[in-house]
Amino acid sequence: MFTEKFLEVLNHEGVVSIVSCSNNEAHVVNTWNSYLVIVEGNKILIPAAAMIKTEENVNSNPDVKLTLGSKEIMGHAYMGTGFLLEGTAKFLKDGEHFNNMKEKYSFLTRVLEITVNSCKQTL
Amino acid sequence: MFTEKFLEVLNHEGVVSIVSCSNNEAHVVNTWNSYLVIVEGNKILIPAAAMIKTEENVNSNPDVKLTLGSKEIMGHAYMGTGFLLEGTAKFLKDGEHFNNMKEKYSFLTRVLEITVNSCKQTL
Repeated sequence: MFTEKFLEVLNHEGVVSIVSCSNNEAHVVNTWNSYLVIVEGNKILIPAAAMIKTEENVNSNPDVKLTLGSKEIMGHAYMGTGFLLEGTAKFLKDGEHFNNMKEKYSFLTRVLEITVNSCKQTL
Repeated sequence: MFTEKFLEVLNHEGVVSIVSCSNNEAHVVNTWNSYLVIVEGNKILIPAAAMIKTEENVNSNPDVKLTLGSKEIMGHAYMGTGFLLEGTAKFLKDGEHFNNMKEKYSFLTRVLEITVNSCKQTL
């Protein structure tokens, strides 16, 4: 699911965009590459403090898209690579993943869990 | 419209997300902080090579959202700042802005022009 190049991106700091959509309006929030935690091979956990509108959106439409990248990693043709991920989201408020994340990111109030269906290198 | 801190972000490399929406599905493409050119006080020009789906979307719904940031610039409370921009988009295929951008970014086929209504610091 996740290539070596994708995992390399997580080790370079940058802005991640998380896009949700409902009522034909897209909403986007950001987090940092270094906050993404991969579990169970195809899931990404992200600490959530606010993300109120994102939570509202995924309650009616769980499909989300994430983008992230790094200019410091070689892409298809030039320096700089980027990835587009598609998956479904839910917010965790308890359980093992929640507890593990809370230890690492004490500021979180929920954990955004994304089950990734597709992870494509775009650049 | 654009704060000094926003302009500072443009001088630090990072991934920009451009989000468009139509038929209740969000689409997102990426570019680099260093590719954004500000003109006329409230417009951002971005070189476009592909962005086919984005162009389709803005033809039916011109509202777009952009996010960008840098972990190397101080935010509200911690290191790392991010911005959410909202505006309307169109694709330029000729004219002065197109010609100026083509000189700088020879790979472009069109210029994505975003008229920015709002530029908020989110972090």
